[in-house]
Amino acid sequence: MKLNKEQIEAKDDSERVLFINSLSGFKSANLVGTANDEKQSNLAIVSSVVHLGANPALLGMVMRPHSVPRGTLENIINTGVYTLNHVNTDIYQQAHQTSARYPEDISEFNEVGLNEQWEEGFAAPFVKESHIKLGMKLREKHHLAINGTEFLIGEIISIEVPDELVSEDGFISLEKANTVAVSSLDTYHSTQLLGHLSYAKTDRDLSFLDREG
Amino acid sequence: MKLNKEQIEAKDDSERVLFINSLSGFKSANLVGTANDEKQSNLAIVSSVVHLGANPALLGMVMRPHSVPRGTLENIINTGVYTLNHVNTDIYQQAHQTSARYPEDISEFNEVGLNEQWEEGFAAPFVKESHIKLGMKLREKHHLAINGTEFLIGEIISIEVPDELVSEDGFISLEKANTVAVSSLDTYHSTQLLGHLSYAKTDRDLSFLDREG
Repeated sequence: MKLNKEQIEAKDDSERVLFINSLSGFKSANLVGTANDEKQSNLAIVSSVVHLGANPALLGMVMRPHSVPRGTLENIINTGVYTLNHVNTDIYQQAHQTSARYPEDISEFNEVGLNEQWEEGFAAPFVKESHIKLGMKLREKHHLAINGTEFLIGEIISIEVPDELVSEDGFISLEKANTVAVSSLDTYHSTQLLGHLSYAKTDRDLSFLDREG
Repeated sequence: MKLNKEQIEAKDDSERVLFINSLSGFKSANLVGTANDEKQSNLAIVSSVVHLGANPALLGMVMRPHSVPRGTLENIINTGVYTLNHVNTDIYQQAHQTSARYPEDISEFNEVGLNEQWEEGFAAPFVKESHIKLGMKLREKHHLAINGTEFLIGEIISIEVPDELVSEDGFISLEKANTVAVSSLDTYHSTQLLGHLSYAKTDRDLSFLDREG
């Protein structure tokens, strides 16, 4: 089918949400861990984390104040820190359940059955069951007036990852970590390696790297 | 392993690039099609497309002026339009090859063996071999001074997708489209469905939807 702008806008709301959310391609699946000043924790799944740069190590994240529990955004702004924890195949159902609208004084950790992991001197909890855990420091917040979303830029200031996932050249196997991919709003996928491709040059053919993972 | 900010920054440049690029999770794989005023085409793979909203239908995209061929960014700004074309398992090697630094007057379409598909009244070419094709209109450009990248916000103004991929509720099966996921800088993955999960509510357990795809 081919749709133009008018046909897209004419779709029923719930149908359009599933449809348009499918179009960006596969998405990352991360749990955002935060806390308020009393260490009351919050946990929210997000599929909008995007790589911004490696030096400094920066990740962007889109937050929709109307759909994500507001507590998460307020906590990030108040404490200046948050955690990002990869969602893996063992915990994707608990991770999805964090998107239910729990009251603000309820911790999603308890409700969905995931465990807080606190590190000394860091004011946000990690998810113990996650294999790849990032400590993030908020660097910038951009209000996107076009649709009322917030684009947060955070710097990666700590990384926890199992040694056996990391290749000599720095590559981390998300597949070995059982990290999942998301499509649309509600669909989770595991992955299968197609290949590691060599750096593309104009004067030679691509080859497959024999890196493990 | 656990790394702090100093240990992250101490890594060798090429190692840090592969390492940090792994940390956001799985990424979307799209080919950006553009053209200059003479319809000279450009094609570039990007892994930074992110969903911003369904109404209006908006996608964000991070572009690094120093790593992506500048022609793509210039063409988007000049013509105000671009296309996004999902990378599938049949074309991921050609898609990766677009990242080689071809001279500006060379079209990556020809060099990597993909075909241009032009639609009347739209000043950017689609990729014929892609199954999910989006016509995009540039709406905003945010310069991210923190690391010199550009965050482009585009509105989806046309969609081409095979009927058989679309469920009654609006969901599009990226898996049936053979859309690939990317990890780090150079690694491509196909996917396997774990499940479609019901809308999370605080007062009931999750269930699996029996939607096809």
